[in-house]
Amino acid sequence: MTEPRPLRVGMVGYSFMGAAHSHAWRTAPRFFDLPLAPQLTAVAGRNEEGVRAAAAKYGWDSVETDWRRLIERDDIDLIDICTPGNTHAEIAITALEAGKHVLCEKPLANSVEEAEKMTAVARAAAEREVLSMCGFSYRRTPALALAKRMVDEGRLGDIRHVRAQYLQDWLSDADAPLTWRLDKSKSGSGSLGDIGAHSIDAAQWITGQAITGVSALMETFVKERPVGGDFVGLGGHGGSDGPKGPVTVDDAAIFTARFSGKHDGGTGPVGIFEATRFALGRKNAMRLELNGTKGSLAFDFEDMNSLQFYDASLEPDAGFRKIMVTEPSHPYTGNWWPTGHGLGYEHGFTHQVVDLVDAIGAGEQPSPSFADALQVQKVLAAVEASAAAESRWQNVDKEH
Amino acid sequence: MTEPRPLRVGMVGYSFMGAAHSHAWRTAPRFFDLPLAPQLTAVAGRNEEGVRAAAAKYGWDSVETDWRRLIERDDIDLIDICTPGNTHAEIAITALEAGKHVLCEKPLANSVEEAEKMTAVARAAAEREVLSMCGFSYRRTPALALAKRMVDEGRLGDIRHVRAQYLQDWLSDADAPLTWRLDKSKSGSGSLGDIGAHSIDAAQWITGQAITGVSALMETFVKERPVGGDFVGLGGHGGSDGPKGPVTVDDAAIFTARFSGKHDGGTGPVGIFEATRFALGRKNAMRLELNGTKGSLAFDFEDMNSLQFYDASLEPDAGFRKIMVTEPSHPYTGNWWPTGHGLGYEHGFTHQVVDLVDAIGAGEQPSPSFADALQVQKVLAAVEASAAAESRWQNVDKEH
Amino acid sequence: MTEPRPLRVGMVGYSFMGAAHSHAWRTAPRFFDLPLAPQLTAVAGRNEEGVRAAAAKYGWDSVETDWRRLIERDDIDLIDICTPGNTHAEIAITALEAGKHVLCEKPLANSVEEAEKMTAVARAAAEREVLSMCGFSYRRTPALALAKRMVDEGRLGDIRHVRAQYLQDWLSDADAPLTWRLDKSKSGSGSLGDIGAHSIDAAQWITGQAITGVSALMETFVKERPVGGDFVGLGGHGGSDGPKGPVTVDDAAIFTARFSGKHDGGTGPVGIFEATRFALGRKNAMRLELNGTKGSLAFDFEDMNSLQFYDASLEPDAGFRKIMVTEPSHPYTGNWWPTGHGLGYEHGFTHQVVDLVDAIGAGEQPSPSFADALQVQKVLAAVEASAAAESRWQNVDKEH
Amino acid sequence: MTEPRPLRVGMVGYSFMGAAHSHAWRTAPRFFDLPLAPQLTAVAGRNEEGVRAAAAKYGWDSVETDWRRLIERDDIDLIDICTPGNTHAEIAITALEAGKHVLCEKPLANSVEEAEKMTAVARAAAEREVLSMCGFSYRRTPALALAKRMVDEGRLGDIRHVRAQYLQDWLSDADAPLTWRLDKSKSGSGSLGDIGAHSIDAAQWITGQAITGVSALMETFVKERPVGGDFVGLGGHGGSDGPKGPVTVDDAAIFTARFSGKHDGGTGPVGIFEATRFALGRKNAMRLELNGTKGSLAFDFEDMNSLQFYDASLEPDAGFRKIMVTEPSHPYTGNWWPTGHGLGYEHGFTHQVVDLVDAIGAGEQPSPSFADALQVQKVLAAVEASAAAESRWQNVDKEH
Repeated sequence: MTEPRPLRVGMVGYSFMGAAHSHAWRTAPRFFDLPLAPQLTAVAGRNEEGVRAAAAKYGWDSVETDWRRLIERDDIDLIDICTPGNTHAEIAITALEAGKHVLCEKPLANSVEEAEKMTAVARAAAEREVLSMCGFSYRRTPALALAKRMVDEGRLGDIRHVRAQYLQDWLSDADAPLTWRLDKSKSGSGSLGDIGAHSIDAAQWITGQAITGVSALMETFVKERPVGGDFVGLGGHGGSDGPKGPVTVDDAAIFTARFSGKHDGGTGPVGIFEATRFALGRKNAMRLELNGTKGSLAFDFEDMNSLQFYDASLEPDAGFRKIMVTEPSHPYTGNWWPTGHGLGYEHGFTHQVVDLVDAIGAGEQPSPSFADALQVQKVLAAVEASAAAESRWQNVDKEH
Repeated sequence: MTEPRPLRVGMVGYSFMGAAHSHAWRTAPRFFDLPLAPQLTAVAGRNEEGVRAAAAKYGWDSVETDWRRLIERDDIDLIDICTPGNTHAEIAITALEAGKHVLCEKPLANSVEEAEKMTAVARAAAEREVLSMCGFSYRRTPALALAKRMVDEGRLGDIRHVRAQYLQDWLSDADAPLTWRLDKSKSGSGSLGDIGAHSIDAAQWITGQAITGVSALMETFVKERPVGGDFVGLGGHGGSDGPKGPVTVDDAAIFTARFSGKHDGGTGPVGIFEATRFALGRKNAMRLELNGTKGSLAFDFEDMNSLQFYDASLEPDAGFRKIMVTEPSHPYTGNWWPTGHGLGYEHGFTHQVVDLVDAIGAGEQPSPSFADALQVQKVLAAVEASAAAESRWQNVDKEH
Repeated sequence: MTEPRPLRVGMVGYSFMGAAHSHAWRTAPRFFDLPLAPQLTAVAGRNEEGVRAAAAKYGWDSVETDWRRLIERDDIDLIDICTPGNTHAEIAITALEAGKHVLCEKPLANSVEEAEKMTAVARAAAEREVLSMCGFSYRRTPALALAKRMVDEGRLGDIRHVRAQYLQDWLSDADAPLTWRLDKSKSGSGSLGDIGAHSIDAAQWITGQAITGVSALMETFVKERPVGGDFVGLGGHGGSDGPKGPVTVDDAAIFTARFSGKHDGGTGPVGIFEATRFALGRKNAMRLELNGTKGSLAFDFEDMNSLQFYDASLEPDAGFRKIMVTEPSHPYTGNWWPTGHGLGYEHGFTHQVVDLVDAIGAGEQPSPSFADALQVQKVLAAVEASAAAESRWQNVDKEH
Repeated sequence: MTEPRPLRVGMVGYSFMGAAHSHAWRTAPRFFDLPLAPQLTAVAGRNEEGVRAAAAKYGWDSVETDWRRLIERDDIDLIDICTPGNTHAEIAITALEAGKHVLCEKPLANSVEEAEKMTAVARAAAEREVLSMCGFSYRRTPALALAKRMVDEGRLGDIRHVRAQYLQDWLSDADAPLTWRLDKSKSGSGSLGDIGAHSIDAAQWITGQAITGVSALMETFVKERPVGGDFVGLGGHGGSDGPKGPVTVDDAAIFTARFSGKHDGGTGPVGIFEATRFALGRKNAMRLELNGTKGSLAFDFEDMNSLQFYDASLEPDAGFRKIMVTEPSHPYTGNWWPTGHGLGYEHGFTHQVVDLVDAIGAGEQPSPSFADALQVQKVLAAVEASAAAESRWQNVDKEH
């Protein structure tokens, strides 16, 4: 067994997502046989002290304070973008044009226009074997990957209902501070893009169908919040005495949807989506339920190591069964622990690295591509358009 | 203790709802002290053989084959209407004008116009102490009654989210037979009126707020079904060889909504509703979740003896707690069994009789009134109107 | 269809069990076709005022203040014994010898000696077509009856583990009053006989195997409690200031067990049992889990309308599935409501009446017989003997 | 902030536990600030090819094929023992006497005698600031650590019941191969020591009480199994045609227990324990429930990121609440992801490293000490003695 060639990674950004990505780059080769050997070559951030501390903490060999400089380096093969959405397009396009592979956090961009440009550049780069992927890491949760497999195998028959909720509660407190995630110029949108995008991607990916239209309602419950303070992570309490600034994104986004259908022909399923960070008690309830003509599947990230499956062929003694997705034959899990020994949130990122490195090693397009992510972006835009037009139905063009 | 005066009941219809109501009339005085003594005086149905068998089975003293004759009888104090929705208006109006109290199954009628007439007649009758009530029996499920009490006590704070699903699966089989519930002329609508109406009533009642507008999507998955056959109950299989007839109602109804707000002033919660009889594996999942500024409540009829409550004041060790709603101090339950010994579906009907008889005994308006049910009817109509107009927002007038 | 002959019932006792039995006698013929028509002919109790009120409340036609007089009446066909365990033997034996059928609440008696006498008398009576049954009503919970059916069908293979818990919490409060259930002379034992007996009967019945030996530990956490006061139902608070009396029964009983094996030959499963009324938060957690060579079953009465089933043949995507035991083909449920509309605690008593009346109509031995109940009694005695002898193993003779 | 001194680790063994420990040593400093910097200096194993592959895979800098040589190396500060139980004593004693800190997998040894020797040596070593710890890693599951904290805070009051189950199913298949875990000479015991030991340690640790006596039943369901084959990990299928060898350990161990009581004075709780690898469908159900005078706690490792808590002071609206143990203030979780983003099995090992390195850095005794593990060993021995003596009660001496 010869030593695999190195894959030298340069990461931009080092907060929540940076910590998760760093762990994934370090850990993937310890549990999976990869065709390339990831190396944590450099991390970039504007604040030198901050980026140096992050490099030491997370195990990066060097630092840059300018992402352009990171891209220019000869010893970097891949750029991993972990910054807010408003910076994605410029960094990704620059990197791809410089011949670097790209892993870009979701949502791909803050607008359809940006996402379209990125997708065009990605397509051109792919011709030169420069590959790109968008970080919808929930696809790598074993239970959702198993759901995808089961749908592909036809175990649900034709799908009639898609029911997706992404419920969190860390903004319920009206005094939680104003962060970049609440600033439309940086984040693009609120619950919709932050968490709803995961639901949209998962629903389209697992069903193998595109959302063709939506009718939406959006709401901002808390119109302004305390500014300033050193906000780290999600949640927290900003104090109610100081100055406040406006929340410019949605607190909740709710929409109905239609899908393209199995063969893009007949009627596909109807869908219902909800994304909120105000559902007290729901901490990370990324839920997806599919009802088909033969069976149903249900998932909740709060119990992420299991998948509920209803097989109608077993009636009258059917009943949803809770599959513990920890068997050797389940996606990803055979490389970890014995049956019943569950995985955690960060494993999705590790599996994302595995799939990305496998694709790069094979010279194949990783999934989800920028085009897949653009399709999500179009749905996000249609949701916002419908919400702004009294919930009127908005069609979504399908990306070809 | 003197013997209470009799309350002589005449029931119209004797299938599923008739069986449930009969049990309730028989059982209520055995577990609750009532101001009047219900008597199962007569049951009416067009088929003499059928109605005689039902009377013997369910314990009614006499039969009529014409509901008009039932209403004319001097020995009847209350008419209990258990027939399909298209007959409600005529029977109820005739009964009220004849001075009989009325209990009418839900939905109140098959159109807003009918419901408005019924409500006007009911109001006039109430002036003469002739009382009426609509049978939204889910209000009498102890867990939902406890939810109402807790919301009234302010334990959720201001409500931001209403999340209602009513999921069944008994029509998933495309060969299930065509019954009156699938015929718009008899049932008014499909999932929407049959089960969605329960969700709408529960949501408005528990929040104490009216739905002010909706955006909706409706779908009929199976366009035609086998006709004929002796269909009894829900579900079943009609055979796929014989003739088929058109399904003229919705199989699924999905909508977003806004509520009037606590004081009919500021913004109320946003709502999301789904009603379907095609969610394989969900047998009677009448679910309701409310998220407020102080806490959350969640209910699922498939586990009907419990209520989930999240009290944010207990953070960081909060977590949804599963209240077994079987304590002596919980609504209705103290009259039944010791703690932990759950109740079943039909208890809601028994409690409905209790509340109705209590109201009649006190000469007070029972709840839900026809006016309350009219409000539900208006929401149903708005949902249908929105679905017919590309999901465009439809306002719902509030009944005053 | 000719009218069935009457079955004239005389009930002794009218508290918790009396209310449940009365409801069952009234309700069974309304939902099930019975070969005999139960009539609530008379109820007996020592306190004339109390028994008259109970008769009016529960629908009994007449009263007696002496159970001997009840048995002497010519217009009584069956004696239903709902009194504390210390009275069972005398009443049952007198009734059987007088030619009355007997339904006797569990546990059958307060000692093996009494139970043996009762069983001998019951056997002799059966020769004269005078039938008897012991009221282990949990057998009639649809989910447990389904469990029995599935085990009989071989769906679990050979059983290796029996895991039974009966957890309640209504005695956790050290100031809950001293009632007859805490007085060994009346109740025979504490948790062991009150609730543990249900677990023992269910385990033996569902497995079709007898417990052959036990090793036990018993404990009384609260040695004395307040006396006096009007204690109604379970639980409550007796006040801590007044006089106290000794608790003479076990608060908790825990034991390991072995079973006779499928063919009374090879090694049967090992069992573990726990009965307590001090498990705070567990309201009526009558739980049973069986693990076999092909699958497993798990039940919890707190979610009584479902049964968990693990079918190993479905691996690697098996997982416990939650069967909602409300299908038309499930035991008892087809006579009630549509799929998904659950039943409650008292339905077990109604089904018990159905099975008893069916057996009497057919002239066959009802199940469980007094002999079955004697077997349970022997296990109770062995548990007490082992607990009194430093947990040493105690064999249990099998009743033949 | 100066760079912490290195802590140079030498690990013995590299299979299942070796993989988990390696991950922990690599990962702990990435998420936690440690007083010493762990270095993966060397790994030892008898098979040179195997150990070289493991070193490459898991990130160890060098290899040894003799654990004695590893201990002799000057550049090793700590020996991490991940081998079967029969080798623990010799390796640990040699290491401690050579002045190396020791982390030893559980169970500490295969006999009380060995464990006593190890404990004596560990005590002597501690005088020289050479520290030791036994790897009961479940203590570091955040939910169990929170349980410990809540019990210590008195939120359960006095504990009356301890209910522990450790249920797996990977040996259900009678053709699963004979591995070292089924060979008493290597593993010491079967389910009892492999998984039951975790339950015993957790129960004693969380209650703060020692088990003072037990009555036990043990069973071996499958007496012989296929030998040979390349068995990796748990479970699997060995084929039924080849030669078989005897299973010399227990397949299931069940026992009742008493605890020392809060102040080693009055009666402590009664306990019930079950360990089996034959509970089909239970994959890693390490469950613990405690019932106290004020509340209850329940845990199941199959849903490892939550803890169920019943607070009786909240009655009548109490109910078990499911605390998601992912809050910043919960044990360990603040160093990982935002609220609601769960952890996995291996995090317990990472936290174990954190606590061990913190203790070494502070020069304090890590917990659990060898003395704590010896106490567990004594319980294991008492269980075996009781099972061999017709379940007779066996007292357990308390380690002082």
